[in-house]
Amino acid sequence: MEDKEKQVKKITPKEEDYSQWYLDIIENADLADNSPVRGCMVIKPSGYAIWENIQGILDKEFKKIGIKNAYFPIFIPQSFFQREAEHIKGFAKECAVVTHHRLVADSKGKLIPGGKLSEPLVVRPTSETIIYSMYSKWIRSFRDLPVKLNQWANVVRWELRTRPFLRTAEFLWQEGHTAHATKKEADEMTFEILNIYEKFFKNYLAIPVVKGKKSEQEKFAGAVYTITIEAMMQDGKALQLATSHMLGQNFSKPFKVRFTDKDGKLKYVWQTSWGLSTRVIGALIMVHSDNKGLILPPKIAPFQVVIVPIWDKKISRQELIEKASQIKAKLRQAKISVCLDEQEGRPGEKFYQWERKGVPLRIEIGIKDIKGKRITLARRDTGEKKSVPLRDFVKEVKATLNDIQENLYQKAVNYSSQLTHEVSNYSQLKSVFENKRAGFALGFWCGDKKCELKVKKDTLATIRCVLFNKKKNKDIGKCVVCQKPAEKKVIFAKAY
Amino acid sequence: MEDKEKQVKKITPKEEDYSQWYLDIIENADLADNSPVRGCMVIKPSGYAIWENIQGILDKEFKKIGIKNAYFPIFIPQSFFQREAEHIKGFAKECAVVTHHRLVADSKGKLIPGGKLSEPLVVRPTSETIIYSMYSKWIRSFRDLPVKLNQWANVVRWELRTRPFLRTAEFLWQEGHTAHATKKEADEMTFEILNIYEKFFKNYLAIPVVKGKKSEQEKFAGAVYTITIEAMMQDGKALQLATSHMLGQNFSKPFKVRFTDKDGKLKYVWQTSWGLSTRVIGALIMVHSDNKGLILPPKIAPFQVVIVPIWDKKISRQELIEKASQIKAKLRQAKISVCLDEQEGRPGEKFYQWERKGVPLRIEIGIKDIKGKRITLARRDTGEKKSVPLRDFVKEVKATLNDIQENLYQKAVNYSSQLTHEVSNYSQLKSVFENKRAGFALGFWCGDKKCELKVKKDTLATIRCVLFNKKKNKDIGKCVVCQKPAEKKVIFAKAY
Repeated sequence: MEDKEKQVKKITPKEEDYSQWYLDIIENADLADNSPVRGCMVIKPSGYAIWENIQGILDKEFKKIGIKNAYFPIFIPQSFFQREAEHIKGFAKECAVVTHHRLVADSKGKLIPGGKLSEPLVVRPTSETIIYSMYSKWIRSFRDLPVKLNQWANVVRWELRTRPFLRTAEFLWQEGHTAHATKKEADEMTFEILNIYEKFFKNYLAIPVVKGKKSEQEKFAGAVYTITIEAMMQDGKALQLATSHMLGQNFSKPFKVRFTDKDGKLKYVWQTSWGLSTRVIGALIMVHSDNKGLILPPKIAPFQVVIVPIWDKKISRQELIEKASQIKAKLRQAKISVCLDEQEGRPGEKFYQWERKGVPLRIEIGIKDIKGKRITLARRDTGEKKSVPLRDFVKEVKATLNDIQENLYQKAVNYSSQLTHEVSNYSQLKSVFENKRAGFALGFWCGDKKCELKVKKDTLATIRCVLFNKKKNKDIGKCVVCQKPAEKKVIFAKAY
Repeated sequence: MEDKEKQVKKITPKEEDYSQWYLDIIENADLADNSPVRGCMVIKPSGYAIWENIQGILDKEFKKIGIKNAYFPIFIPQSFFQREAEHIKGFAKECAVVTHHRLVADSKGKLIPGGKLSEPLVVRPTSETIIYSMYSKWIRSFRDLPVKLNQWANVVRWELRTRPFLRTAEFLWQEGHTAHATKKEADEMTFEILNIYEKFFKNYLAIPVVKGKKSEQEKFAGAVYTITIEAMMQDGKALQLATSHMLGQNFSKPFKVRFTDKDGKLKYVWQTSWGLSTRVIGALIMVHSDNKGLILPPKIAPFQVVIVPIWDKKISRQELIEKASQIKAKLRQAKISVCLDEQEGRPGEKFYQWERKGVPLRIEIGIKDIKGKRITLARRDTGEKKSVPLRDFVKEVKATLNDIQENLYQKAVNYSSQLTHEVSNYSQLKSVFENKRAGFALGFWCGDKKCELKVKKDTLATIRCVLFNKKKNKDIGKCVVCQKPAEKKVIFAKAY
């Protein structure tokens, strides 16, 4: 399945060329490939298996809080798309438009688009408009509320500069859409989802995150406010991992999503939408991997363990595979996902191959191990090797996997702490972004768009989010740009 | 979530108007809704939950035989689509074409498509061409084979007359695509998948099926041959449920999917493709449901059991819900999917509601039951009620669910046997299709396209499939149309 000619391709060290390193990791771990369609990628089985795990975990969490899945059309009539003014402004520049419904032969026999549509259809870049046109039909009374639906779907945004997982013309995501009787409920929903996302990143992807509110400049086109989860990549840039939007009544008014409340009055619903995409696979790659290849946290890895038999003249291939199969069976019983590498070839080559693919733990088993009733565990994250008795190896494997998970998280926490710089004035801020691996600058902002845009112009960094204020008494400081009193503590960073 | 005004809508008896009955079932069970996009439907949570179950079961079966999931772009460059001559002929008339990548304001400020693409993109109606363009890049050696990938995706075929689940412009499906070193392996794969589908229909959907080969007229555009699974609906029409295509080298040649074989020679791979779509939900509805509403076989039902507490002045609401919750918990422990109806309202109304939704088994629990330490089971398929002791009700529920599953299958088997008519000459064949509920006509066919088309012209029935010949000695008869010697035993039927 892999492009054999390329199999030996070296991984560019990240210190040398971070972008190339990222692409090399993807190629070497066989996660995705470029397609012949501009800006679209192919997600290969090793990459898609990660997405399946992400789907499985999140879907369960969503269902626990009463969210149901549904499916809405991929096409949106242009007129629907236009109804919310900010929304259309945000997406008009990058949408695929279907104008015809067949291919016909021209006079020379060449096929050209035929059957022109009376109204162009937009391939969904997001589905607020099409979904809320249905909500307006379904919702009549307060008894119908809340409505909490999600869909797993593909969307298209015609990006000019693309990069696998991070930015592609088509991508896969989930988009949740809720409708509530009160503003309070919608506000709570917006935050409840962000917390689900946060726990998911922390507990499964081992990615430490920063939560906060987007500035007016950066919020979703059509939202009252957007809250976001951002994480630091190893090049010090920020990546937006998931967002949750309080839509207020911005869509319920143009789409007439109304209900008769308990008091008999006709009211507009309050809405939220929120999403997470295949982009998080890009984050997973960038947060943990090293110059040997991909590193996956055990809780999201399609294979948590790979068993590599060490071929030896002193033991038959069959006997060795039998022993390895017994180990595999015991791990499976313990619900550990495991793969047995039965290929021919030298151990070293095979080790290298599985390292590139990011499998968290390798089990080696050879003649020496069998004689000593032991096996060898080799960690992908630290490279450590350890010989353990066969007697209770399952327990040992479980503990090691937990340890790897924890270690990856701690490593990422340390990394992002180190690269998070408190700044209190403009020269400090600028000097942060003079570094190639700048990281996050943490400082006060007065809330003025002018200051925000000045930072962007001078440093290319943007406000990733305004941190939530946990303290009862407001934290007050001075805007790093204009030095006026400021209440908003924000993260500035260059971003993907 | 339901359209409350419509909730009391009666279901048209199927004997009166079968098409309307079908639509009424969908509406009353809240499975789907029409969308504002021509020919596209919305799959509502109750309908989508069935699709999720279908996905879960099939995905597991596919993975058992080494099939992996991947994801390929939704867009296909027009030039790719054209490379296989039959393929483009088959799909050109019904494909959505993307011609622009943005919306721009015209001189009057009205938004119109802008950013014309240099080459139109077709929204995939099926993905052979885009996938095999990747295979040609990935496959080099016999060591790379077989490649066995599947994708769960949406596809678009611009149908003019649409009907929810059965025929919609956009639908959801899985499409498998394999590449093999030899013709024999590809042949075997084609049949292996059909057997997986067949077992799935029989064991989970409780639908008896007929397997066979499509005629040249009816095969997939681009296939060497197509094998199919067909089932009889309650109006006597056939519905194609799943197909598996032997593609031979029809695509590997134009797309240059080649490999170096063990003998050092460069060869073209042999390929198969196969798919099953949300259409099977249409079959599920049409095979089992009655005039009271949807009937779902327990093995595919999102809720296998619904618990309806019978409110009574003699017992507090809280106490009753507590008892019901204990029952629910025990069923969950036994891995039975169950829902507890805590709504207010009269039992009769609630029973009616759950009947319309097709939940296989209802558990009633009231004051009498609690005193007698019993509960009442009511079957959706037969309407039978039975009081069982609380002591070992889980066992009883399990047995009843199995019995419902078996009963639905047997009922469907009997129905389709009764409506399958052996015919040996043309007047017999014609008289079969003079009936409104015609069913299947089983007879010999010489293989001549003329005879096939004559039947279609005279009766509107088509050859659904040529039955596989299980006997060692060929079964020989006379063509029902021309009376010439014939080896092919076929099913004629009107079809969806």
